[in-house]
Amino acid sequence: MTNGGWRRNATRKLYESPWFDLRQDEVTLPNGDDITYTLVDHPGYAMVVPLLDDGRVVLERVYRYTVDDTLLECPAGGIEGESPERAAARELEEETGWRAATLEPLGVFFGSSGISNERCHYYLATDLTHTGAVQLENTEQITVELVPFAHAVEMALRGEIRDAPSALALILADRHQRGGA
Amino acid sequence: MTNGGWRRNATRKLYESPWFDLRQDEVTLPNGDDITYTLVDHPGYAMVVPLLDDGRVVLERVYRYTVDDTLLECPAGGIEGESPERAAARELEEETGWRAATLEPLGVFFGSSGISNERCHYYLATDLTHTGAVQLENTEQITVELVPFAHAVEMALRGEIRDAPSALALILADRHQRGGA
Repeated sequence: MTNGGWRRNATRKLYESPWFDLRQDEVTLPNGDDITYTLVDHPGYAMVVPLLDDGRVVLERVYRYTVDDTLLECPAGGIEGESPERAAARELEEETGWRAATLEPLGVFFGSSGISNERCHYYLATDLTHTGAVQLENTEQITVELVPFAHAVEMALRGEIRDAPSALALILADRHQRGGA
Repeated sequence: MTNGGWRRNATRKLYESPWFDLRQDEVTLPNGDDITYTLVDHPGYAMVVPLLDDGRVVLERVYRYTVDDTLLECPAGGIEGESPERAAARELEEETGWRAATLEPLGVFFGSSGISNERCHYYLATDLTHTGAVQLENTEQITVELVPFAHAVEMALRGEIRDAPSALALILADRHQRGGA
Protein backbone atom coordinates (compact mmCIF):
# COMPACT_ATOMS: atom_id res chain seq x y z
CA MET A 1 0.00 0.00 0.00
CA THR A 2 1.46 3.33 -0.97
CA ASN A 3 -1.38 5.67 -0.06
CA GLY A 4 -0.18 8.06 -2.77
CA GLY A 5 -1.19 11.04 -0.68
CA TRP A 6 -4.87 10.88 -1.59
CA ARG A 7 -7.25 11.68 1.29
CA ARG A 8 -10.76 10.23 1.30
CA ASN A 9 -13.23 12.61 2.92
CA ALA A 10 -16.48 10.75 2.27
CA THR A 11 -17.78 7.61 0.59
CA ARG A 12 -21.16 6.30 -0.46
CA LYS A 13 -22.62 3.44 -2.45
CA LEU A 14 -24.44 4.41 -5.65
CA TYR A 15 -25.37 0.79 -6.36
CA GLU A 16 -25.12 -2.50 -4.48
CA SER A 17 -25.47 -6.11 -5.63
CA PRO A 18 -24.13 -9.55 -4.76
CA TRP A 19 -21.65 -9.25 -7.67
CA PHE A 20 -20.28 -5.74 -7.30
CA ASP A 21 -21.06 -2.28 -5.91
CA LEU A 22 -20.56 1.16 -7.36
CA ARG A 23 -18.76 3.37 -4.84
CA GLN A 24 -18.36 7.13 -5.02
CA ASP A 25 -15.67 8.83 -2.94
CA GLU A 26 -14.96 12.49 -2.26
CA VAL A 27 -11.18 12.79 -2.31
CA THR A 28 -8.55 15.48 -1.79
CA LEU A 29 -5.60 14.97 -4.14
CA PRO A 30 -1.97 15.57 -3.08
CA ASN A 31 -2.06 18.92 -4.93
CA GLY A 32 -5.09 20.03 -2.85
CA ASP A 33 -7.72 19.56 -5.57
CA ASP A 34 -11.03 18.13 -4.38
CA ILE A 35 -12.45 15.52 -6.76
CA THR A 36 -15.12 12.85 -6.94
CA TYR A 37 -13.84 9.36 -7.82
CA THR A 38 -16.33 6.64 -8.74
CA LEU A 39 -15.23 3.03 -8.86
CA VAL A 40 -16.45 -0.53 -9.10
CA ASP A 41 -16.13 -2.14 -5.67
CA HIS A 42 -15.67 -5.84 -6.34
CA PRO A 43 -15.19 -8.80 -3.94
CA GLY A 44 -12.63 -10.34 -6.30
CA TYR A 45 -12.73 -13.62 -8.12
CA ALA A 46 -10.73 -16.77 -8.73
CA MET A 47 -9.62 -18.22 -12.06
CA VAL A 48 -8.43 -21.78 -12.58
CA VAL A 49 -6.25 -23.48 -15.18
CA PRO A 50 -7.40 -27.10 -14.69
CA LEU A 51 -4.79 -29.43 -16.16
CA LEU A 52 -5.75 -33.06 -16.68
CA ASP A 53 -3.25 -35.90 -16.34
CA ASP A 54 -3.59 -36.59 -20.07
CA GLY A 55 -2.25 -33.13 -20.99
CA ARG A 56 -5.56 -31.47 -21.76
CA VAL A 57 -6.91 -28.35 -20.06
CA VAL A 58 -10.56 -27.87 -19.05
CA LEU A 59 -11.82 -24.70 -20.73
CA GLU A 60 -15.28 -23.21 -21.15
CA ARG A 61 -17.12 -21.58 -23.99
CA VAL A 62 -19.18 -18.95 -22.19
CA TYR A 63 -21.85 -16.68 -23.59
CA ARG A 64 -21.17 -13.17 -22.27
CA TYR A 65 -24.20 -10.94 -22.39
CA THR A 66 -22.03 -7.87 -21.72
CA VAL A 67 -20.34 -8.19 -25.11
CA ASP A 68 -22.93 -10.39 -26.86
CA ASP A 69 -20.32 -12.94 -27.76
CA THR A 70 -19.16 -16.42 -26.79
CA LEU A 71 -15.63 -16.49 -25.38
CA LEU A 72 -13.21 -19.31 -24.66
CA GLU A 73 -12.23 -18.88 -21.02
CA CYS A 74 -10.71 -20.60 -18.03
CA PRO A 75 -13.23 -21.53 -15.32
CA ALA A 76 -13.70 -18.59 -12.96
CA GLY A 77 -16.11 -17.14 -10.46
CA GLY A 78 -16.64 -14.63 -7.72
CA ILE A 79 -15.40 -15.01 -4.17
CA GLU A 80 -18.45 -15.40 -1.94
CA GLY A 81 -17.22 -14.70 1.61
CA GLU A 82 -14.71 -17.54 1.43
CA SER A 83 -11.00 -17.89 0.69
CA PRO A 84 -9.93 -17.34 -2.92
CA GLU A 85 -8.70 -20.94 -3.01
CA ARG A 86 -12.06 -22.25 -1.84
CA ALA A 87 -13.80 -20.13 -4.47
CA ALA A 88 -11.49 -21.55 -7.13
CA ALA A 89 -12.26 -25.15 -6.14
CA ARG A 90 -16.00 -24.52 -5.81
CA GLU A 91 -16.39 -22.66 -9.09
CA LEU A 92 -14.33 -25.25 -10.96
CA GLU A 93 -16.58 -28.08 -9.87
CA GLU A 94 -19.84 -26.12 -10.23
CA GLU A 95 -19.05 -24.98 -13.75
CA THR A 96 -17.24 -28.03 -15.18
CA GLY A 97 -17.88 -31.03 -12.92
CA TRP A 98 -14.16 -31.49 -12.26
CA ARG A 99 -12.78 -31.58 -8.71
CA ALA A 100 -9.16 -30.61 -8.01
CA ALA A 101 -7.05 -32.31 -5.33
CA THR A 102 -4.21 -29.81 -5.84
CA LEU A 103 -4.40 -26.04 -6.29
CA GLU A 104 -1.25 -23.97 -6.71
CA PRO A 105 -1.37 -20.15 -6.75
CA LEU A 106 -0.08 -18.41 -9.89
CA GLY A 107 -0.48 -14.86 -8.61
CA VAL A 108 -3.02 -12.12 -7.98
CA PHE A 109 -3.74 -9.63 -10.74
CA PHE A 110 -5.74 -6.49 -11.37
CA GLY A 111 -7.87 -6.35 -14.49
CA SER A 112 -9.06 -2.78 -14.77
CA SER A 113 -7.34 -0.78 -12.05
CA GLY A 114 -8.39 2.62 -13.36
CA ILE A 115 -12.04 2.05 -12.50
CA SER A 116 -12.21 -1.12 -10.37
CA ASN A 117 -10.56 -2.72 -7.35
CA GLU A 118 -11.28 -6.16 -8.81
CA ARG A 119 -8.53 -8.67 -8.02
CA CYS A 120 -8.29 -12.01 -9.77
CA HIS A 121 -6.55 -14.91 -8.01
CA TYR A 122 -5.08 -17.32 -10.58
CA TYR A 123 -4.60 -21.01 -9.75
CA LEU A 124 -3.22 -24.08 -11.43
CA ALA A 125 -5.43 -27.09 -10.64
CA THR A 126 -4.11 -30.63 -10.98
CA ASP A 127 -4.98 -34.13 -9.73
CA LEU A 128 -8.46 -33.70 -11.18
CA THR A 129 -11.28 -36.17 -10.89
CA HIS A 130 -14.58 -35.97 -12.73
CA THR A 131 -17.56 -35.80 -10.36
CA GLY A 132 -20.06 -34.37 -12.84
CA ALA A 133 -21.45 -32.21 -10.02
CA VAL A 134 -22.23 -29.30 -12.31
CA GLN A 135 -24.45 -26.58 -10.82
CA LEU A 136 -25.02 -23.76 -13.28
CA GLU A 137 -26.98 -20.62 -12.55
CA ASN A 138 -29.62 -19.64 -15.08
CA THR A 139 -27.38 -16.93 -16.53
CA GLU A 140 -24.46 -19.33 -17.05
CA GLN A 141 -24.44 -20.69 -20.62
CA ILE A 142 -21.31 -22.76 -20.49
CA THR A 143 -20.00 -25.58 -22.64
CA VAL A 144 -16.94 -27.42 -21.35
CA GLU A 145 -14.13 -28.04 -23.86
CA LEU A 146 -11.10 -30.23 -23.23
CA VAL A 147 -8.23 -28.72 -25.22
CA PRO A 148 -4.62 -29.94 -25.46
CA PHE A 149 -2.78 -27.65 -23.07
CA ALA A 150 0.03 -26.83 -25.52
CA HIS A 151 -2.57 -25.81 -28.09
CA ALA A 152 -4.42 -23.59 -25.60
CA VAL A 153 -1.16 -21.86 -24.62
CA GLU A 154 -0.31 -21.36 -28.28
CA MET A 155 -3.75 -19.80 -28.85
CA ALA A 156 -3.13 -17.45 -25.92
CA LEU A 157 0.29 -16.42 -27.28
CA ARG A 158 -1.27 -15.77 -30.69
CA GLY A 159 -3.85 -13.43 -29.15
CA GLU A 160 -6.66 -15.82 -30.05
CA ILE A 161 -8.02 -16.05 -26.49
CA ARG A 162 -9.83 -12.77 -26.18
CA ASP A 163 -10.52 -12.96 -22.46
CA ALA A 164 -7.32 -11.33 -21.17
CA PRO A 165 -7.25 -12.97 -17.71
CA SER A 166 -7.74 -16.42 -19.26
CA ALA A 167 -4.93 -15.83 -21.76
CA LEU A 168 -2.54 -14.63 -19.06
CA ALA A 169 -3.48 -17.48 -16.71
CA LEU A 170 -2.76 -20.10 -19.41
CA ILE A 171 0.62 -18.53 -20.20
CA LEU A 172 1.60 -18.34 -16.51
CA ALA A 173 0.47 -21.92 -15.94
CA ASP A 174 2.65 -23.03 -18.84
CA ARG A 175 5.61 -21.15 -17.37
CA HIS A 176 4.93 -22.76 -13.98
CA GLN A 177 4.80 -26.23 -15.51
CA ARG A 178 8.12 -25.66 -17.24
CA GLY A 179 9.60 -24.86 -13.83
CA GLY A 180 10.40 -21.31 -14.82
CA ALA A 181 8.51 -19.42 -12.14
CA MET B 1 -21.89 -11.89 -32.29
CA THR B 2 -23.77 -14.93 -31.12
CA ASN B 3 -26.79 -13.37 -29.44
CA GLY B 4 -27.02 -16.38 -27.16
CA GLY B 5 -30.79 -16.21 -27.17
CA TRP B 6 -31.02 -13.44 -24.55
CA ARG B 7 -33.74 -10.86 -25.24
CA ARG B 8 -33.36 -7.34 -23.88
CA ASN B 9 -36.73 -5.84 -22.96
CA ALA B 10 -35.61 -2.58 -21.39
CA THR B 11 -32.48 -0.67 -20.52
CA ARG B 12 -31.59 2.32 -18.37
CA LYS B 13 -28.54 4.12 -17.07
CA LEU B 14 -28.03 4.02 -13.29
CA TYR B 15 -24.90 6.19 -13.54
CA GLU B 16 -23.17 8.15 -16.28
CA SER B 17 -19.71 9.69 -16.47
CA PRO B 18 -17.05 10.49 -19.09
CA TRP B 19 -15.19 7.32 -18.06
CA PHE B 20 -17.94 4.71 -17.84
CA ASP B 21 -21.65 4.26 -17.28
CA LEU B 22 -23.58 1.74 -15.21
CA ARG B 23 -26.31 0.15 -17.32
CA GLN B 24 -29.20 -1.95 -16.08
CA ASP B 25 -31.07 -4.20 -18.50
CA GLU B 26 -34.25 -6.20 -18.12
CA VAL B 27 -33.62 -9.45 -19.97
CA THR B 28 -35.48 -12.64 -20.82
CA LEU B 29 -33.14 -15.65 -20.78
CA PRO B 30 -33.40 -18.51 -23.31
CA ASN B 31 -35.16 -20.62 -20.65
CA GLY B 32 -37.84 -17.93 -20.23
CA ASP B 33 -36.61 -16.52 -16.92
CA ASP B 34 -36.83 -12.74 -16.58
CA ILE B 35 -33.77 -11.26 -14.93
CA THR B 36 -32.10 -7.91 -14.30
CA TYR B 37 -28.50 -7.66 -15.54
CA THR B 38 -26.36 -4.71 -14.45
CA LEU B 39 -23.09 -3.99 -16.22
CA VAL B 40 -20.34 -1.45 -16.65
CA ASP B 41 -20.80 0.25 -20.03
CA HIS B 42 -17.31 1.34 -21.08
CA PRO B 43 -16.09 3.18 -24.21
CA GLY B 44 -12.98 0.98 -24.32
CA TYR B 45 -9.35 1.91 -24.02
CA ALA B 46 -6.02 1.51 -25.76
CA MET B 47 -2.80 0.08 -24.31
CA VAL B 48 0.63 0.56 -25.81
CA VAL B 49 3.90 -1.36 -25.59
CA PRO B 50 6.33 1.41 -26.61
CA LEU B 51 9.61 -0.16 -27.74
CA LEU B 52 12.63 2.13 -28.11
CA ASP B 53 15.33 1.50 -30.72
CA ASP B 54 17.80 0.77 -27.90
CA GLY B 55 15.79 -2.24 -26.68
CA ARG B 56 14.08 -0.59 -23.73
CA VAL B 57 10.33 -0.32 -23.22
CA VAL B 58 8.57 2.79 -21.87
CA LEU B 59 6.61 1.78 -18.77
CA GLU B 60 4.82 3.75 -16.07
CA ARG B 61 4.59 3.50 -12.33
CA VAL B 62 1.02 4.60 -11.69
CA TYR B 63 -0.67 5.24 -8.37
CA ARG B 64 -4.08 3.54 -8.50
CA TYR B 65 -6.53 4.94 -6.00
CA THR B 66 -8.88 2.00 -6.60
CA VAL B 67 -6.44 -0.43 -5.00
CA ASP B 68 -4.31 2.07 -3.05
CA ASP B 69 -1.16 0.81 -4.66
CA THR B 70 1.43 1.80 -7.25
CA LEU B 71 1.53 -0.54 -10.26
CA LEU B 72 4.00 -0.97 -13.10
CA GLU B 73 1.92 -0.67 -16.27
CA CYS B 74 2.06 -0.07 -19.98
CA PRO B 75 0.81 3.38 -21.04
CA ALA B 76 -2.96 3.26 -21.57
CA GLY B 77 -6.00 5.44 -21.69
CA GLY B 78 -9.63 5.70 -22.61
CA ILE B 79 -10.95 6.12 -26.14
CA GLU B 80 -12.53 9.55 -26.35
CA GLY B 81 -14.71 9.51 -29.48
CA GLU B 82 -11.71 8.71 -31.68
CA SER B 83 -10.21 5.59 -33.23
CA PRO B 84 -8.47 3.17 -30.84
CA GLU B 85 -5.21 3.79 -32.71
CA ARG B 86 -5.54 7.55 -32.29
CA ALA B 87 -6.26 7.06 -28.56
CA ALA B 88 -3.15 4.89 -28.27
CA ALA B 89 -0.91 7.51 -29.89
CA ARG B 90 -2.44 10.38 -27.93
CA GLU B 91 -2.30 8.70 -24.53
CA LEU B 92 1.27 7.53 -25.11
CA GLU B 93 2.48 11.07 -25.77
CA GLU B 94 0.34 12.70 -23.05
CA GLU B 95 1.48 10.27 -20.37
CA THR B 96 5.11 9.68 -21.32
CA GLY B 97 6.23 12.39 -23.76
CA TRP B 98 7.09 9.81 -26.43
CA ARG B 99 5.57 9.99 -29.93
CA ALA B 100 5.22 6.85 -32.05
CA ALA B 101 5.65 6.86 -35.84
CA THR B 102 4.53 3.23 -36.09
CA LEU B 103 1.66 1.47 -34.30
CA GLU B 104 0.90 -2.19 -34.94
CA PRO B 105 -2.20 -3.86 -33.48
CA LEU B 106 -1.65 -6.83 -31.14
CA GLY B 107 -5.31 -7.69 -30.65
CA VAL B 108 -8.46 -6.65 -28.81
CA PHE B 109 -9.19 -8.19 -25.43
CA PHE B 110 -11.86 -8.23 -22.76
CA GLY B 111 -10.77 -7.66 -19.17
CA SER B 112 -13.81 -8.43 -17.06
CA SER B 113 -16.49 -9.79 -19.35
CA GLY B 114 -18.81 -10.95 -16.57
CA ILE B 115 -19.64 -7.42 -15.49
CA SER B 116 -18.23 -5.06 -18.15
CA ASN B 117 -18.16 -4.61 -21.92
CA GLU B 118 -14.74 -2.97 -21.64
CA ARG B 119 -12.49 -3.76 -24.60
CA CYS B 120 -8.79 -3.03 -24.57
CA HIS B 121 -6.98 -2.51 -27.88
CA TYR B 122 -3.31 -3.50 -27.56
CA TYR B 123 -0.63 -1.91 -29.76
CA LEU B 124 3.08 -2.21 -30.30
CA ALA B 125 4.60 1.25 -30.79
CA THR B 126 7.98 1.70 -32.49
CA ASP B 127 9.96 4.46 -34.22
CA LEU B 128 9.59 6.57 -31.10
CA THR B 129 10.83 10.12 -30.69
CA HIS B 130 10.89 12.05 -27.43
CA THR B 131 8.79 15.22 -27.60
CA GLY B 132 8.40 15.75 -23.86
CA ALA B 133 4.83 16.87 -24.50
CA VAL B 134 3.49 15.35 -21.30
CA GLN B 135 -0.02 16.45 -20.29
CA LEU B 136 -1.13 14.73 -17.11
CA GLU B 137 -4.53 15.14 -15.51
CA ASN B 138 -4.58 15.96 -11.81
CA THR B 139 -5.50 12.38 -10.94
CA GLU B 140 -2.61 10.91 -12.95
CA GLN B 141 0.40 10.25 -10.69
CA ILE B 142 2.73 8.70 -13.20
CA THR B 143 6.48 8.17 -13.25
CA VAL B 144 7.98 6.97 -16.52
CA GLU B 145 10.47 4.08 -16.33
CA LEU B 146 12.61 2.84 -19.20
CA VAL B 147 13.08 -0.90 -18.68
CA PRO B 148 15.03 -3.35 -20.85
CA PHE B 149 12.30 -5.06 -22.87
CA ALA B 150 13.59 -8.59 -22.21
CA HIS B 151 13.53 -7.86 -18.47
CA ALA B 152 9.98 -6.50 -18.60
CA VAL B 153 8.78 -9.60 -20.49
CA GLU B 154 10.53 -11.82 -17.96
CA MET B 155 8.77 -9.94 -15.13
CA ALA B 156 5.43 -10.49 -16.87
CA LEU B 157 6.10 -14.23 -17.29
CA ARG B 158 7.06 -14.47 -13.62
CA GLY B 159 3.73 -12.89 -12.58
CA GLU B 160 5.52 -9.81 -11.23
CA ILE B 161 3.50 -7.34 -13.32
CA ARG B 162 0.24 -7.26 -11.42
CA ASP B 163 -1.74 -5.30 -13.98
CA ALA B 164 -3.03 -8.20 -16.09
CA PRO B 165 -3.53 -6.28 -19.37
CA SER B 166 -0.01 -4.84 -19.13
CA ALA B 167 1.49 -8.28 -18.51
CA LEU B 168 -0.38 -9.84 -21.44
CA ALA B 169 0.47 -6.92 -23.76
CA LEU B 170 4.19 -7.27 -23.00
CA ILE B 171 4.11 -11.02 -23.64
CA LEU B 172 2.20 -10.58 -26.93
CA ALA B 173 4.56 -7.82 -28.05
CA ASP B 174 7.52 -10.10 -27.36
CA ARG B 175 5.90 -12.85 -29.41
CA HIS B 176 5.21 -10.38 -32.23
CA GLN B 177 8.83 -9.20 -32.22
CA ARG B 178 10.05 -12.78 -32.46
CA GLY B 179 7.91 -13.15 -35.57
CA GLY B 180 5.74 -15.77 -33.98
CA ALA B 181 2.34 -14.15 -34.35
